[in-house]
Amino acid sequence: MTQGTVYGVGLGPGSQDLMSVRADRLIRGATHVAYFRKKGRCGHARTIVEGMIPPGAIELPMEYPVTTEIPFDDPRYNELLAAFYERSVAQLIEMAEAGCDVVVLCEGDPFFYGSFMHLYTRLLNRVPVSVVPGITGMSAAWTATDQPITWGDDILTVLMATLPEEALAERIAQTDALVVMKIGRNLAKLRRALVHAGREGEAWLIEYAAMSQQRVLPLSEVGESVPYFSIVLIHGHGRRP
Amino acid sequence: MTQGTVYGVGLGPGSQDLMSVRADRLIRGATHVAYFRKKGRCGHARTIVEGMIPPGAIELPMEYPVTTEIPFDDPRYNELLAAFYERSVAQLIEMAEAGCDVVVLCEGDPFFYGSFMHLYTRLLNRVPVSVVPGITGMSAAWTATDQPITWGDDILTVLMATLPEEALAERIAQTDALVVMKIGRNLAKLRRALVHAGREGEAWLIEYAAMSQQRVLPLSEVGESVPYFSIVLIHGHGRRP
Repeated sequence: MTQGTVYGVGLGPGSQDLMSVRADRLIRGATHVAYFRKKGRCGHARTIVEGMIPPGAIELPMEYPVTTEIPFDDPRYNELLAAFYERSVAQLIEMAEAGCDVVVLCEGDPFFYGSFMHLYTRLLNRVPVSVVPGITGMSAAWTATDQPITWGDDILTVLMATLPEEALAERIAQTDALVVMKIGRNLAKLRRALVHAGREGEAWLIEYAAMSQQRVLPLSEVGESVPYFSIVLIHGHGRRP
Repeated sequence: MTQGTVYGVGLGPGSQDLMSVRADRLIRGATHVAYFRKKGRCGHARTIVEGMIPPGAIELPMEYPVTTEIPFDDPRYNELLAAFYERSVAQLIEMAEAGCDVVVLCEGDPFFYGSFMHLYTRLLNRVPVSVVPGITGMSAAWTATDQPITWGDDILTVLMATLPEEALAERIAQTDALVVMKIGRNLAKLRRALVHAGREGEAWLIEYAAMSQQRVLPLSEVGESVPYFSIVLIHGHGRRP
């Protein structure tokens, strides 16, 4: 029997019509659909494709054993996640071995800070895998600000707010254009780093870019908490004829 | 009469099915289509959408008065380009004032180092403008390498090879993951910067990502010239359970 293929499909930032034509076709023709979610939730990836999955398709929700309950640097965090990825991969391989193609729904672009990568490296050389890139959340975020992010020779730096404050401040001071993701509990630290770099006044916060709840505002007008789908940007100002 | 809208439509990396569903709909329903091209060429953006534009649609090729014949830092370069953008904007506004929507074809993502930005800033507050983000060429490039670009807290730096050699070397040494674009005539300089940063062995060259001529190879195996659509990458190696 021919093995099925596992497709890691980038959904883009969250609006159905910002999905690629290839992703749209794969999802609307899927017989097996897998996605990550937090226990007890619908899952954001699954919510994005609501109404697109054919009736009768088999769904495989992959439920994180832990999200933010244990800190990243606790060894148990890695152990729990590694075991979870192994179990998920075993299920995907079982489907592929039975000759079925499986569409794995991936928010944004699968190879850009995505969870699919943890499955991908474990699937390689065991079943055929194909990755469909997507529009990143950061592209949707800068589009939402109605201002280009990079011009001419601008340097763009992408940082996770989970980095130490000093590293954030140093990198923010040195770049032309900036994207910061994984903000959540790190908002106060990120703010201090921006102030330290003298750039707080240039920063924008984008919540839920490309989604119905999209909101764009100067970071200085933001309160003390932000939703998970938040991105901070500073626009570049390079050469422009 | 109601003004038409100018749509800056991201085409993505160059494969028709990696266009967003929104872009696909706008192009297939267009009555007026504009795009940049080099004099005497078909234009890469126009080539990407071959077969998608409805018969009878009006096309507006916007031909660069200069591309690489004059260096960026020559004041005539900026003057010529500024005048060209003004002329192009006048034509787009004329169409919109006549009540027609105009689709401007943009390679990649319009707000990410794109030429459309030079029209966009001149169109603002004169006619309605709407920007459709796209999959970037760099997303297609890292997808082509079959390896994720960023993991965990990896720092990603995006550089133009047009920067001075010292700046390139310094930034390359400091980042986890790297993307370099606008390589062309700067290949030898970029190579020296990579060697100086001690990272030449990690670098990949991707030519024509997501296009039929796609080629992926270690930079060490690349000759002395590369096509315009080339991207150099170094993959991050961050936290991975």
